Amino acid sequence: MEEEQLLKSGERINQLFSTDIKIIQNREVFSYSVDSVLLSRFPRFPKKGLIVDFCAGNGAVGLFASTRTQAQILAVEIQERLADMAERSVRLNGLEEQMQVICDDLKNMPAHIQGSKVDMILCNPPYFKVDPHSNLNESEHYLLARHEITTNLQEICRSAQSILKSNGRLAMVHRPDRLLDILDTLQRHNLAPKRLQFVYPKKEKEANMLLIEAIKDGSTSGFKVLPPLIVHNDDGSYTPELEEIYYGS
Amino acid sequence: MEEEQLLKSGERINQLFSTDIKIIQNREVFSYSVDSVLLSRFPRFPKKGLIVDFCAGNGAVGLFASTRTQAQILAVEIQERLADMAERSVRLNGLEEQMQVICDDLKNMPAHIQGSKVDMILCNPPYFKVDPHSNLNESEHYLLARHEITTNLQEICRSAQSILKSNGRLAMVHRPDRLLDILDTLQRHNLAPKRLQFVYPKKEKEANMLLIEAIKDGSTSGFKVLPPLIVHNDDGSYTPELEEIYYGS
Repeated sequence: MEEEQLLKSGERINQLFSTDIKIIQNREVFSYSVDSVLLSRFPRFPKKGLIVDFCAGNGAVGLFASTRTQAQILAVEIQERLADMAERSVRLNGLEEQMQVICDDLKNMPAHIQGSKVDMILCNPPYFKVDPHSNLNESEHYLLARHEITTNLQEICRSAQSILKSNGRLAMVHRPDRLLDILDTLQRHNLAPKRLQFVYPKKEKEANMLLIEAIKDGSTSGFKVLPPLIVHNDDGSYTPELEEIYYGS
Repeated sequence: MEEEQLLKSGERINQLFSTDIKIIQNREVFSYSVDSVLLSRFPRFPKKGLIVDFCAGNGAVGLFASTRTQAQILAVEIQERLADMAERSVRLNGLEEQMQVICDDLKNMPAHIQGSKVDMILCNPPYFKVDPHSNLNESEHYLLARHEITTNLQEICRSAQSILKSNGRLAMVHRPDRLLDILDTLQRHNLAPKRLQFVYPKKEKEANMLLIEAIKDGSTSGFKVLPPLIVHNDDGSYTPELEEIYYGS
């Protein structure tokens, strides 16, 4: 199909240059950003089996992950407009055999996946708690993608625990100010944190992102903090690590 | 007093070049290392009041801290031989008015400090759990300094909670593989983690140390992961941050 036929009003196509993957984007409703790219490069992917991408947005994480594994990928997104963009990006890349998109609430995962058979869950969740200080003046699409309105950490961990295989893994990107909450919620759902990596915008700045991998029913021994991921050099250009992720082979 | 008169057999004097502080060292029983130096540069020191250094060893942390604050410093060390070295280093530096050393178990802190009146606790504790895989073939002095034999995280947090003022702070250096345990134990003792910094031996290596500051009875909001502290450049020389800490003004 011609690329243009897959686009709706206000949409454009972006490419991640280190892959052949093209993504339908729309700034009005949602655009993937560095978070999704880093998440798709962080985990130790299973070679085959089943991967589920929670809070999939426009499908970027699953689409990028498709270049790293032969596993089936199921993207789950609650917002119809975003799930529709994701589904068209799957077609745009000819990935219909490997990747499917469903539009539903994480609460309903057991209706789609019977039993505990998932090898890996990827998740770029809403980052912010909703509290009296929250700025809820954003457009609805951004609001739901950024704030814990339709789902939250606890529900993500509960759903992950129910559909992951024993020793299956959850890989998530999140914010450092939620670290205590993240570690606590994972462990209360028998998801043992194993690998943690901090992302620093520059080497003299505080971390503004974290990547974490947890194992269902695993032990917490062997917990590691991976090398720092520093995004920009002092002059604002990308560091070699980020160049590799964005433009590398 | 002449320096030589303060030295016993096997001992030598080391100086931290970014300060005038001299430390009596003895490789046979204990030497301070980069951990103590980094801990003494990490916290936001109170200008005055009372600081207690738990697991003080030969007193390095408290001695270095004395250059950053006018507060009284009480160093607590359970091993007599190390406490004696610490006490002689206090005299060597003429710091008898600011710093005292006691040789006792942390369990007995309430006998030395009545009520909750401490502004800050510093702690470079034994890092390793004792389990059936532990290598316990070290000399007794190193064994007690490195393994949780005479004290452990829980006891440190319990003692800290009992003698700290409300909003007083505990600053600790530890190992990243204990992070989950550290965060959990702090929070169970109402010590709210606030600042966390990881130390990486080189920029492409996993973290091998962490520095953490927690506030008694504080909230966990505003939790931060500070910029990475990278010790060595690729060629093995110190990074500018470490040069500053070791040799800086």
